[in-house]
Amino acid sequence: MKAALMTEPGKLSIVEREMPQIKENEVLVKIEHVGVCGSDLHYYEYGRIGNFVVEKPIVLGHEAAGRVVETGKNVKTLRKGDLVALEPGITCGKCEFCKTGRYNLCPDVEFLATPPYDGAFVEYIAYPEDMCFKLPPEMDTMEGALIEPLAVGFHTANQANAQIGESAVILGAGCIGLVILMSLLARGLREVYITDIIDLRLKKAEEIGAKKCINARESKVVEEIMKLTDNKGVDIVIDAAGSKITTQQTVDLVKRGGRIILVGMAANPVIEYDFGKLQAKEAVLNTVFRYRNIYPAAIKAVGEKMIDVKQIVTDVFGFSEIKKALEYNIVNKEKTVKVVIDMNK
Amino acid sequence: MKAALMTEPGKLSIVEREMPQIKENEVLVKIEHVGVCGSDLHYYEYGRIGNFVVEKPIVLGHEAAGRVVETGKNVKTLRKGDLVALEPGITCGKCEFCKTGRYNLCPDVEFLATPPYDGAFVEYIAYPEDMCFKLPPEMDTMEGALIEPLAVGFHTANQANAQIGESAVILGAGCIGLVILMSLLARGLREVYITDIIDLRLKKAEEIGAKKCINARESKVVEEIMKLTDNKGVDIVIDAAGSKITTQQTVDLVKRGGRIILVGMAANPVIEYDFGKLQAKEAVLNTVFRYRNIYPAAIKAVGEKMIDVKQIVTDVFGFSEIKKALEYNIVNKEKTVKVVIDMNK
Amino acid sequence: MKAALMTEPGKLSIVEREMPQIKENEVLVKIEHVGVCGSDLHYYEYGRIGNFVVEKPIVLGHEAAGRVVETGKNVKTLRKGDLVALEPGITCGKCEFCKTGRYNLCPDVEFLATPPYDGAFVEYIAYPEDMCFKLPPEMDTMEGALIEPLAVGFHTANQANAQIGESAVILGAGCIGLVILMSLLARGLREVYITDIIDLRLKKAEEIGAKKCINARESKVVEEIMKLTDNKGVDIVIDAAGSKITTQQTVDLVKRGGRIILVGMAANPVIEYDFGKLQAKEAVLNTVFRYRNIYPAAIKAVGEKMIDVKQIVTDVFGFSEIKKALEYNIVNKEKTVKVVIDMNK
Amino acid sequence: MKAALMTEPGKLSIVEREMPQIKENEVLVKIEHVGVCGSDLHYYEYGRIGNFVVEKPIVLGHEAAGRVVETGKNVKTLRKGDLVALEPGITCGKCEFCKTGRYNLCPDVEFLATPPYDGAFVEYIAYPEDMCFKLPPEMDTMEGALIEPLAVGFHTANQANAQIGESAVILGAGCIGLVILMSLLARGLREVYITDIIDLRLKKAEEIGAKKCINARESKVVEEIMKLTDNKGVDIVIDAAGSKITTQQTVDLVKRGGRIILVGMAANPVIEYDFGKLQAKEAVLNTVFRYRNIYPAAIKAVGEKMIDVKQIVTDVFGFSEIKKALEYNIVNKEKTVKVVIDMNK
Repeated sequence: MKAALMTEPGKLSIVEREMPQIKENEVLVKIEHVGVCGSDLHYYEYGRIGNFVVEKPIVLGHEAAGRVVETGKNVKTLRKGDLVALEPGITCGKCEFCKTGRYNLCPDVEFLATPPYDGAFVEYIAYPEDMCFKLPPEMDTMEGALIEPLAVGFHTANQANAQIGESAVILGAGCIGLVILMSLLARGLREVYITDIIDLRLKKAEEIGAKKCINARESKVVEEIMKLTDNKGVDIVIDAAGSKITTQQTVDLVKRGGRIILVGMAANPVIEYDFGKLQAKEAVLNTVFRYRNIYPAAIKAVGEKMIDVKQIVTDVFGFSEIKKALEYNIVNKEKTVKVVIDMNK
Repeated sequence: MKAALMTEPGKLSIVEREMPQIKENEVLVKIEHVGVCGSDLHYYEYGRIGNFVVEKPIVLGHEAAGRVVETGKNVKTLRKGDLVALEPGITCGKCEFCKTGRYNLCPDVEFLATPPYDGAFVEYIAYPEDMCFKLPPEMDTMEGALIEPLAVGFHTANQANAQIGESAVILGAGCIGLVILMSLLARGLREVYITDIIDLRLKKAEEIGAKKCINARESKVVEEIMKLTDNKGVDIVIDAAGSKITTQQTVDLVKRGGRIILVGMAANPVIEYDFGKLQAKEAVLNTVFRYRNIYPAAIKAVGEKMIDVKQIVTDVFGFSEIKKALEYNIVNKEKTVKVVIDMNK
Repeated sequence: MKAALMTEPGKLSIVEREMPQIKENEVLVKIEHVGVCGSDLHYYEYGRIGNFVVEKPIVLGHEAAGRVVETGKNVKTLRKGDLVALEPGITCGKCEFCKTGRYNLCPDVEFLATPPYDGAFVEYIAYPEDMCFKLPPEMDTMEGALIEPLAVGFHTANQANAQIGESAVILGAGCIGLVILMSLLARGLREVYITDIIDLRLKKAEEIGAKKCINARESKVVEEIMKLTDNKGVDIVIDAAGSKITTQQTVDLVKRGGRIILVGMAANPVIEYDFGKLQAKEAVLNTVFRYRNIYPAAIKAVGEKMIDVKQIVTDVFGFSEIKKALEYNIVNKEKTVKVVIDMNK
Repeated sequence: MKAALMTEPGKLSIVEREMPQIKENEVLVKIEHVGVCGSDLHYYEYGRIGNFVVEKPIVLGHEAAGRVVETGKNVKTLRKGDLVALEPGITCGKCEFCKTGRYNLCPDVEFLATPPYDGAFVEYIAYPEDMCFKLPPEMDTMEGALIEPLAVGFHTANQANAQIGESAVILGAGCIGLVILMSLLARGLREVYITDIIDLRLKKAEEIGAKKCINARESKVVEEIMKLTDNKGVDIVIDAAGSKITTQQTVDLVKRGGRIILVGMAANPVIEYDFGKLQAKEAVLNTVFRYRNIYPAAIKAVGEKMIDVKQIVTDVFGFSEIKKALEYNIVNKEKTVKVVIDMNK
């Protein structure tokens, strides 16, 4: 079978690999769509993200969906022909984090396309049944692949404990900001403001349903939000940009007793912050690391047409064009929101 | 009646005031004990705390207990002779914060000894029945006065959602650090570490029951805690010092998925913080602003002898010595934990 | 002004009353729409509900909205001309339930149209500012009046902690069942089944958006739901009928670890129940008593057109026809879902 | 090695079995103490509990602790010589219940001494590392075996969300009632009342620290509790007896907004219950099925001497006396609270 192998940063080519053999509890999935994530780009450019270093050739891609073509003998819930979305982190099931349901914190997770584990830019993958989530007939595998970023949005809404009737600001309207917007709207929030400095993104946000899109280059974000909220601030502030400016804004935007959620990881994450204001408001600052227990709900929301997750897709490339897709994405960040690889092309 | 009036910073004398008249829902309380709080000292030294400025003569003191000597005609639950602790913040009862039970965030609170409201360094006070909490026969009014700082400890434990079996570090063993220690122990936590740089405080912490007291001048706090916790960090980190160093330590001390609580307000609260580490651990950072709905539980814990709250008292002065007490406290911060005024002396 | 006074069960006439005088914190509201509730019908028929006995003439009606025509001198957030929905329970603000935000449990509540307090079938009412919720320009006072039953739906969803992606069954598609359906849909649930024995109600439920409407006369409810849920049961079971049969069904319909919510009060509420099944599933059974802190969110949902609350209205009568409306409703329960009084007619 | 095999109800003898072979992730444990549970007695008497039927010879016993004598090659946290308590339910780790941390609801659990799985009345057992919890040096294996019933107590306190300062009634002072009492006390509750009809049990409860022990034969439980709580009822009512009378009492004992927890499984669990009262109080009724994620905290509490769990032990028998122990226990229920088998004797 074919796989897109990155041998070192900037070097990637399609190679032949042996077909994977499934275990009793696994299914063989023919991959159909894979989204390109910022982490794929980062590994491709720099060969590392923080402590995760690419030390040997690696297959990238972890936002994947495909078709089941073979099932292990203990597999009960999936059949040949089923379309499935793959949740990319396989965890130990034994540590305190797994046992308490917070498996996204499992220190022994094997996460697709995170060194040293290969990812999903391959024709076929052998994958555990319980990490393959069946798509309803209303969904295709492009939507299936997009469940992965959407899961971040859903988990963010969970970490915020976002409730119908509450107000929110999302700082940053890139892919993650937009899936958070979709997630908040799906839960019944309507007073959701969003900021960015790139017009394409704000236009997307408007289409998706933000109540007000603020270009942070043209308006003073804090003043604007205070005007919109009767000087109270919003219940929920989500930093999906991870810049110094946005992180610092969070405490001025949040209402007394409100919640701040940090999602976007800053390039330089050591930031001066006014903790005195946070305390005076008795606000809480929560964080998001990947997601947990969220694929079924995210799939349901897309299948039920509550969320049109393809709205974030700006570009589609074929399997043979993965190198081109990564490079296009890197140099056109202002023009792209989400690039998807159609593995059948 | 007599009252201790501060006419300007550093100027305080005992003056005569008219006896207060009680309303239908109020009781008249003869004040017996009042604790001296850091905020009293701050107003006495500087005449302001943040936006709260002393613009006219003020009576300080808000950690108070006394004896009911008269009851308004609608008062049902209190009688003449009852000993009561006074919860110092009277709130509006009408705003969204009051209605949702988070009355400590009420913007219209009238808080004893917070400008422009007078405090409890007086012989008598007229006070609403529902803010006077009856002490059981096992308790005296010195304990009653100390319920106020203890309430901060209890609320901190609530904000941390501290559970039996969990581990915690308290950074700072001053009055607030110690009442937090008492509160965590009373909830069944035993693995509670505490740090400070003043030996008197660490000695108190040891008496109260900290599992390990760390002098931060002599040991590397993070290394020490990592050794004690098998390199996992603790479930709960509480910053009760509010210094730059302690605030920055919190993220290194906390376990994956753990909780950080900020209690102590920093003199300069704008601090460089590593939010990247916080996100990688998916830890949450919560805050404490005063307390809410906590007097009954705190009183019960003291009445049941689960907590010996007098352990924090280092000095007692008489009513006529309030000025001396404040000044003594200001210049002897290393030798004092809690100064209490015995209003009957 | 005019008021509809019930002098004894079955006797009701329009009488003249003095105009109410507003206090400093009150507004005078000209009532425009009032919904007829089951409790109004019950008082009209029997003169009592449980321990609440009509012992003197009473004005019924507690689902009310109108126009502000005068404001007390301390009123800040409302102006003459504003349309407002009235939350009917005025609470003490002092008891432990009020202070902890659970004011619906306040034992001293004064609830409109619950003996001995008069209700809203009047031309004008003096009402506290903080209990009058301003309607946005998109809403009229018929919708405003319907916020009261909708609030029960929202509170039920809160008590269930209903989350997007979860499945639910609502037993009973009367007024309360339908507003619960609206509430669950607004929060993003889509897999919501509903049962009843009256076709009109099931038709309404289908229009509103139930995934499947089951006529309990024609189908076996438990079998049907098990088929629909792969023999797992649903996350949330809501008994909005309060009959022996529906209450008993709850434990068979609920999934392991799921939640049952009882809303409808049974005429005979002592029911044989299989607690062993509940325990084997470690399911929880929660209840609903009125609502709390919910008007703003419910108003927002209607104003934003997420919910078309008028879908439950089957009949409208004028002020002079209140007696007729009550009697019509009593004898036509199968044909009516919600009767509303247009007080301007 | 030796094992105590029950070939049919009432027939049990010590037989020879092959030594178990450990897998890579398992340890071999020499069993030292095993508690006798009501379920062991029930299988011994009747050969079944509900749907669980003993269809082939079975080894009983699931409250076990022992010494590690061999470790599999992937075992990292345990060494030869360690004393460990065994958590008896091995779960799938893959289902939605396992993944969300509610593994006690896993439908594929393999639970010691629950047909068809053998239990711990054996000399040696091969057991997964992550289900063996190391005891601190302060603890022996009798305490280790008793962690199992104590875990039910801790989980009950969790399901009740019991908070310091709250009041509680425990109905039933048998083994489970007593470990619940211990658990509530360890969390800082002091106002804990308990009822039973057997004096031995009430005496135990008094020794452990109940505030008041009520003999339900001699006093009217509801009246008594109302007197003790100023007619308010208690925050938490725990039915640890599971009788018709106690289950029905719960709703009269609970305070408005309070919580009822059902632990004891009734012989006939279909009980007439006044749901109207439950609804009028907006009380919640929760349940307990085994426990989850609780061994570490329970072990810590015993190791720290917060709980003297041996207080529940009334009788100790040797390995060769298991049959005698079971039969003694069955006929002396009023004289026994917890029977423990010392497997070394």
